[in-house]
Amino acid sequence: MPRYRLDLEYDGTAYAGWQRQAGHHTVQAAIEQAVLAASGEQITLRGAGRTDAGVHALGQVAHIDLSREWAANKLMGALNAHLEQGGETVAVTAARQVADEFDARFSATARHYLYRIVNRRAPLTLEKRCAWLVKRRLDAGAMHAAAQMLVGKHDFTTFRSVQCQSKSPVKTLDRLDVTRDGDVIEIRASARSFLHNQVRSMVGTLRKAGEGTWTPADVRAALEAADRAACGPVAPPDGLYLVRVDYEGGTPSSD
Amino acid sequence: MPRYRLDLEYDGTAYAGWQRQAGHHTVQAAIEQAVLAASGEQITLRGAGRTDAGVHALGQVAHIDLSREWAANKLMGALNAHLEQGGETVAVTAARQVADEFDARFSATARHYLYRIVNRRAPLTLEKRCAWLVKRRLDAGAMHAAAQMLVGKHDFTTFRSVQCQSKSPVKTLDRLDVTRDGDVIEIRASARSFLHNQVRSMVGTLRKAGEGTWTPADVRAALEAADRAACGPVAPPDGLYLVRVDYEGGTPSSD
Repeated sequence: MPRYRLDLEYDGTAYAGWQRQAGHHTVQAAIEQAVLAASGEQITLRGAGRTDAGVHALGQVAHIDLSREWAANKLMGALNAHLEQGGETVAVTAARQVADEFDARFSATARHYLYRIVNRRAPLTLEKRCAWLVKRRLDAGAMHAAAQMLVGKHDFTTFRSVQCQSKSPVKTLDRLDVTRDGDVIEIRASARSFLHNQVRSMVGTLRKAGEGTWTPADVRAALEAADRAACGPVAPPDGLYLVRVDYEGGTPSSD
Repeated sequence: MPRYRLDLEYDGTAYAGWQRQAGHHTVQAAIEQAVLAASGEQITLRGAGRTDAGVHALGQVAHIDLSREWAANKLMGALNAHLEQGGETVAVTAARQVADEFDARFSATARHYLYRIVNRRAPLTLEKRCAWLVKRRLDAGAMHAAAQMLVGKHDFTTFRSVQCQSKSPVKTLDRLDVTRDGDVIEIRASARSFLHNQVRSMVGTLRKAGEGTWTPADVRAALEAADRAACGPVAPPDGLYLVRVDYEGGTPSSD
């Protein structure tokens, strides 16, 4: 059966997250429904990252197997037509046929997330539900210094949701950079994989550092406690974006 | 009476434009309503630019006169509280008391607009109603070259809405730059003042240049025709943002 890689962008506001759940509107179900409408085939969509309710994606990656061959451009056009018609806020930004070895989830070598904070007193307008509004002044330099305590291979139990199903709490965080441009603070996190709620848990803790409540040593101590109770309040989903997923040597082609 | 300058940001999607109109939800009326709720005073808000329905602002400027003295920060907080409570997508991003000579509209020395095009086949998700989706590939270099035909002092009758109330169609366009970053094309326009629909009319015409349908000479000829019928289709409001308004020597202080 031909396999297709789909690159996806979505506004996660209206969705109860990525994963199909009975009685809930989810990204996975919306796309599976569009595939059914376009092709008549009932498939299971496999995604690189199971984003939570309200989390957005600029570059989620998924794959599907179809019994019929499609020109990738036609498949993309047909899926987008059905998604748009259904009022979904998901779009297929690229589609291509890939080799059977390609698995959107298991072949991924890195995942890149962005978290956006708007640091000002005025409420959000254009960025409502697309950023976290923090009214108290944050020191982005202090946040970046604290973030470096978390980079590397660690037991991230402190920054892991109690619902996390990952076998091990040990992950290697490759990058956690904090930058400010005017009122906007951007936090960029990269790793092969993340624990459930890890980015939002780290961001909530970095906020404490930005307010001056926690020093980098306090953040380090929270990590070393390997105790969920040591985590700062988890940041809301609104500011989180799955930006890009990397694969070894790009994506293996089907030919 | 003390005068206050208000800097405003808004998502224009839900508004029938800036200007108060009986039976319509407008930005001006929303803020006047918030001032009434906060201060008990019925005032007229004067804005630098009367943006159309669906047009956004990152840095609109307005002024109000109140009979009572307010600490500017308290005024900003009170207005934002009422705007938020009313479900408005307008925020006051800065407030300060200014001299009586300051007039948000007449003291302005320059207005800066941004127009955002997303140039791709996939529908918009996060940027729905915040950009113009153009599916056909556009050559931003060709658009920029054509744009330079419009810079300078000209009779802009071609790029003026028939509803425009300006006494003269002659304006000086200081800047019209077109740049591309990935799928996003940004058009930046600056002038002391613009005619009604001028930016959207110019953008619609530049699209023709980007598609290769019109040469820079064709754009020049459209300008020189001084005939509304020579204009390309007007671009939708979704992509337009009033970014900033400049004042001579900044804003005169009240003290």
